Amino acid sequence: MSDKKIIRIGLVGYGFMGRTHSNAYNRLENFFPELKYRPVLKAVCARNKERLQAFADQWGYESIETDWRKLIARDDIDAIDICTPNNMHAEIAIAAAKAGKMVLCEKPLARTVAEAQPMVDAVEKAGVKNTVWYNYRRVPAVTLAKQLIDAGKLGKIFHYRANFLQDWTISPELPQGGEGTWRLDNEAAGSGVTGDLLAHCIDTAMWLNGGIKDVSAVTETFIKERMHTGTGEVQKVDIDDACIFHCHFDNGSLGVFESTRYARGHKAAKTFEINGEHASIKWDLHDLNRLEYFDHRDESITRGWRSIHVTDGDQPYMDKWWVPGLSVGYEHTFVHQAADFFKSLEDDSVCSPTFKEAQETQKVCEAVLESAKERRWKDTDVNWQK
Amino acid sequence: MSDKKIIRIGLVGYGFMGRTHSNAYNRLENFFPELKYRPVLKAVCARNKERLQAFADQWGYESIETDWRKLIARDDIDAIDICTPNNMHAEIAIAAAKAGKMVLCEKPLARTVAEAQPMVDAVEKAGVKNTVWYNYRRVPAVTLAKQLIDAGKLGKIFHYRANFLQDWTISPELPQGGEGTWRLDNEAAGSGVTGDLLAHCIDTAMWLNGGIKDVSAVTETFIKERMHTGTGEVQKVDIDDACIFHCHFDNGSLGVFESTRYARGHKAAKTFEINGEHASIKWDLHDLNRLEYFDHRDESITRGWRSIHVTDGDQPYMDKWWVPGLSVGYEHTFVHQAADFFKSLEDDSVCSPTFKEAQETQKVCEAVLESAKERRWKDTDVNWQK
Amino acid sequence: MSDKKIIRIGLVGYGFMGRTHSNAYNRLENFFPELKYRPVLKAVCARNKERLQAFADQWGYESIETDWRKLIARDDIDAIDICTPNNMHAEIAIAAAKAGKMVLCEKPLARTVAEAQPMVDAVEKAGVKNTVWYNYRRVPAVTLAKQLIDAGKLGKIFHYRANFLQDWTISPELPQGGEGTWRLDNEAAGSGVTGDLLAHCIDTAMWLNGGIKDVSAVTETFIKERMHTGTGEVQKVDIDDACIFHCHFDNGSLGVFESTRYARGHKAAKTFEINGEHASIKWDLHDLNRLEYFDHRDESITRGWRSIHVTDGDQPYMDKWWVPGLSVGYEHTFVHQAADFFKSLEDDSVCSPTFKEAQETQKVCEAVLESAKERRWKDTDVNWQK
Amino acid sequence: MSDKKIIRIGLVGYGFMGRTHSNAYNRLENFFPELKYRPVLKAVCARNKERLQAFADQWGYESIETDWRKLIARDDIDAIDICTPNNMHAEIAIAAAKAGKMVLCEKPLARTVAEAQPMVDAVEKAGVKNTVWYNYRRVPAVTLAKQLIDAGKLGKIFHYRANFLQDWTISPELPQGGEGTWRLDNEAAGSGVTGDLLAHCIDTAMWLNGGIKDVSAVTETFIKERMHTGTGEVQKVDIDDACIFHCHFDNGSLGVFESTRYARGHKAAKTFEINGEHASIKWDLHDLNRLEYFDHRDESITRGWRSIHVTDGDQPYMDKWWVPGLSVGYEHTFVHQAADFFKSLEDDSVCSPTFKEAQETQKVCEAVLESAKERRWKDTDVNWQK
Repeated sequence: MSDKKIIRIGLVGYGFMGRTHSNAYNRLENFFPELKYRPVLKAVCARNKERLQAFADQWGYESIETDWRKLIARDDIDAIDICTPNNMHAEIAIAAAKAGKMVLCEKPLARTVAEAQPMVDAVEKAGVKNTVWYNYRRVPAVTLAKQLIDAGKLGKIFHYRANFLQDWTISPELPQGGEGTWRLDNEAAGSGVTGDLLAHCIDTAMWLNGGIKDVSAVTETFIKERMHTGTGEVQKVDIDDACIFHCHFDNGSLGVFESTRYARGHKAAKTFEINGEHASIKWDLHDLNRLEYFDHRDESITRGWRSIHVTDGDQPYMDKWWVPGLSVGYEHTFVHQAADFFKSLEDDSVCSPTFKEAQETQKVCEAVLESAKERRWKDTDVNWQK
Repeated sequence: MSDKKIIRIGLVGYGFMGRTHSNAYNRLENFFPELKYRPVLKAVCARNKERLQAFADQWGYESIETDWRKLIARDDIDAIDICTPNNMHAEIAIAAAKAGKMVLCEKPLARTVAEAQPMVDAVEKAGVKNTVWYNYRRVPAVTLAKQLIDAGKLGKIFHYRANFLQDWTISPELPQGGEGTWRLDNEAAGSGVTGDLLAHCIDTAMWLNGGIKDVSAVTETFIKERMHTGTGEVQKVDIDDACIFHCHFDNGSLGVFESTRYARGHKAAKTFEINGEHASIKWDLHDLNRLEYFDHRDESITRGWRSIHVTDGDQPYMDKWWVPGLSVGYEHTFVHQAADFFKSLEDDSVCSPTFKEAQETQKVCEAVLESAKERRWKDTDVNWQK
Repeated sequence: MSDKKIIRIGLVGYGFMGRTHSNAYNRLENFFPELKYRPVLKAVCARNKERLQAFADQWGYESIETDWRKLIARDDIDAIDICTPNNMHAEIAIAAAKAGKMVLCEKPLARTVAEAQPMVDAVEKAGVKNTVWYNYRRVPAVTLAKQLIDAGKLGKIFHYRANFLQDWTISPELPQGGEGTWRLDNEAAGSGVTGDLLAHCIDTAMWLNGGIKDVSAVTETFIKERMHTGTGEVQKVDIDDACIFHCHFDNGSLGVFESTRYARGHKAAKTFEINGEHASIKWDLHDLNRLEYFDHRDESITRGWRSIHVTDGDQPYMDKWWVPGLSVGYEHTFVHQAADFFKSLEDDSVCSPTFKEAQETQKVCEAVLESAKERRWKDTDVNWQK
Repeated sequence: MSDKKIIRIGLVGYGFMGRTHSNAYNRLENFFPELKYRPVLKAVCARNKERLQAFADQWGYESIETDWRKLIARDDIDAIDICTPNNMHAEIAIAAAKAGKMVLCEKPLARTVAEAQPMVDAVEKAGVKNTVWYNYRRVPAVTLAKQLIDAGKLGKIFHYRANFLQDWTISPELPQGGEGTWRLDNEAAGSGVTGDLLAHCIDTAMWLNGGIKDVSAVTETFIKERMHTGTGEVQKVDIDDACIFHCHFDNGSLGVFESTRYARGHKAAKTFEINGEHASIKWDLHDLNRLEYFDHRDESITRGWRSIHVTDGDQPYMDKWWVPGLSVGYEHTFVHQAADFFKSLEDDSVCSPTFKEAQETQKVCEAVLESAKERRWKDTDVNWQK
């Protein structure tokens, strides 16, 4: 333990994502003891001092800061982890990179491609380690899907379809802006479901199936006006409540994506399905330990979708946890990404997705929003190395 | 069409099973045109003349009889199909066999082993074709299970478990006796769930996994008294509302069976699962086109239960129906048994289960009921040729 | 039976659909005995005389014709049922209507809206009963969905999504044209998955959720050339192998549809899901007896998707068949439509979808194909009376 | 944080259960910050010093001991947590109680009822807090089941069925005894699946449905001999590989239980189903976030099994974790039990199951094993306060 190298974390923001990241750091020593680097929770930063101290106590942060600039200025911080609303990502990340800190940023990287550009430039110029928390890549079943695809099990890909369906904003009484609902406020969030939910789907999709070339999208805002918690007034809702698009991937396959917060019965239905020449794969976040797999090469009379319970030691990350049949949950995805980040320090490799890769996802999001607005196909200009 | 040999059917009873059998005969020409024998619905027999005539018209019977003895005496009848309550099976079957008629009998064969004995003797002495309508063997998915087991896919068998759960008798207002509820009247039915539901499970089990050697059972009658539609009086309920037993099979595997009409949420949950050294199989009547199959020989990282949609042309009976993906239903099981019966006439083979085989099932049922009564293990004396 | 009015059927085409329709007619007397009209299978028409006679024998047609014009000219035919490839629908239907025959036509009505127009005109001018076999409306679970929606259970609708996924044309060895594969020949079929599969989804969707206003589509042809069984030569494939579109419904909801024959693991995955303010519904043809239903008004701690096994007597059509828990299959949908058609004769009502309604579905198909070709949104000009 | 009362933990054993318990203690501060007591990992005890130190480092134990007697003798230990093989539970627990320590013991409490008796006596005499880690009660979905039952949602109970199926000992090459396989060694484990797996099922069952009155069981040992890692010789296998029993509960319902390690395809299929007059409940550890619930009081046409994704804030324990739709896993059950244990210190209540309650579970296990051996029904003498 004593000979591990220490990375001193400074966390900005203590909301939902602040909790998932803090938990990830706290689990590493127990479940990834072989790592040569380990995090120390040095400081957490937010504006409300009282609640911040409670958060620090709960999660074990040694100190607090109420000004993120001060946090970045501290010598005893090695890495800045950004868990603020989206509109603050850029400023903080750029300052952190300039100060030579590693930067871990919640997704989406930024509200726009343009906003992301100086972020990418800053980390590349500073040569600092960086990663964006597209955590769903590290669900063991999703990582297994990646392995199967890369091993060529599916053959040529024909179709990719993905959803992220929720139902928590159906009530017109829900306000926009403020702590629980800044995701409904376009100024803070940059977009609605496109940046919040589809960004996840797009990151997973490009990781599994390569670059998205062009898109044709439609968006909808079902509730046109909501009370704004900032102004206290009923204001126009500017975010997209729902978004659907189809697309071409670089590999010639067709994609279709849908996201909404108006799908009754779906709490967090992040799903994907990919159909190849030889085999197909399906996954649903609600049952995240399961991967559905169909292999046409199975003997015809016993061919069927296999429901794989991804909890065995030879499946991704699962040698770290329990024994076959015993599930992991949502939070483990962050632990896995944190572990991979620290592992990347050992051999000076990259912890994907980097800012650069996350900007490519941003390009798709932006093309989607523009396509919907202009009612026409848009090229994405994505440059994805598969 | 004209050169087919005709088998003239005389049906006794026009209840639920009268409908399923009549439908089976009527479908043969359309779906099994290659058969060299074909049924003609010559006569149907029951006591209520008016309703009988309506049934005959609906299903295409040429004539009616109100006395089954007269039906059997007719020269223009080749086969007697028995769809009466269980207490009438023996008398009719024996008379039919003596008259040289083929006999097709609804399950269970009889109320007791002793009652079944002269039935078996009669058909064997007369040398007439006979079969008992344990229709669930002919669900395509169940027949496929049989093929997989016989091909050795499962290896040595360790476990067999089967249920038949229903929930239609929970109300104490339901009477016993009479048309819809004779199954609750011990005099007419011979037993409760054991003869009605478990008999199906036992027939399927021995067909798939061989003879059952000994049993240890418990039964329960949850509603102790019900109005009897015959006497109009509240009488003791003598049937078993629920029955559970475990057992040893001849092949050394353990079995466990449960049946009840008090399992809320289950309309007709006839299920089985069989665990072998190499592979396992599961099935549920509610989703009868699906067979669940797990093969341990699959590559470990993609191993999982396969949900096989048994609707392809290379799967049992399915070349007769539609195209892959298009389901068949409950009634098709009777069509398949009827087709197999007529096919057995072509080459003078046996249409399993015969009376003799059905009596073996009866032995298990009887041992189960006795075991429950005496609270001890009972040998079944089953002699099953697998 | 004797006082029923007889409708003498003349069937054109004896392929897969010829079988499903013939079976539907043959089942009516057994399962819908209360109908006042009944079909008589008078004649079946096709070119190959030998196979035609075998078909007639198998299904009980009294006579055969090798020229459909002669069939239509016969005085002893009341209704023409069209089961030919799509390119022959129009000519036959128009001639039949002119001859004063009722017309039942397989879907899609025609290859194009323009081709459909004189068909609609013909039946309307002649005032003859007409219907198009969009059979999936009559799956009991789908009809139940319609009832729930019409009863207002879902409230305002936000989303509609539908798929029809298959995997039978992935092999490049498969030819185009000819008996089993005319659906790959654009000349015969008019389009690929759009007319064959999406037409079903669109009919169901508009029936459940009202008119589709505009569409934005993409299509793909994965295998560019196939041997043509007619010419014996390798020719360009003109059909759409896959098609995806999103759309606006008249009621303000968003729709997304996808169809392909390149989705490994899906034999006939016709699915739909509809999300309303209060409740949601899902259905899949593979498990056609089940309807998934989520009602937000359920108590929160026990709220979840309900898997309804639609086999009870109080659910659509199910009083005609067996008892709760016992499934029906694919073919029953045609029996139901035939029954509804004959019922419509009793009170001179309409058996939906009529030619007129089916032409509206055609409009969506055409807008979809044009949108894909032109890479832009297209209005459908659908006029749907919900 | 500073004003919390500290409970200094001494853990005995560092195997699989040592990890789950250590993790539980480590999570409390992050997820249950409101607790007034908190654990400090003072010492861990086992024989292999090198590996022990590594474990201590990994999990944060301050010190190590290689003799559990010394651990118990230490003044700076408040609670002893026992994670050894079953044959050491009694001696350690009794000594700990005598020393006035709180005792937390892995299940099963002991190998026999007789062995458990002085354990119960010891904790009761010493008046020390005690609990047994029957962790599955604290799966949120299982706790929800308990709430629903206690609220009377199910009405009178008719049936209880439970399984715990695994498939990890099918290979005859697997040895008995030793670190990974002491569960196959009767001396160390006390029994096979009965104590290891069925004990869990029985604890859950009595918690949910009350006392078990009498049992009738069968056991089987499929592999008769295995190499013993201790002696290095092939020895007779004395454990039960499989066990099935049926029983009566005090409330008049029937139960059936099955456990095996020879059920291919099941990694950890701990399941239960309970059927009541009004409603039924089902659960499976493989999909532990889901509870299946059927309520007969739902409107008949939309009645079906509800698949409840138990991840909402108003469902048990779930306000501590993430947001609706985001799963928890296996390890959370231990965190919940630890939290409940510390909560019980605040108000001096009981953290169920206590040693006393766990002994009742032991009684059922023992009656089961005796029933199997003697081939007859056995009374359990359970005294369960529901």
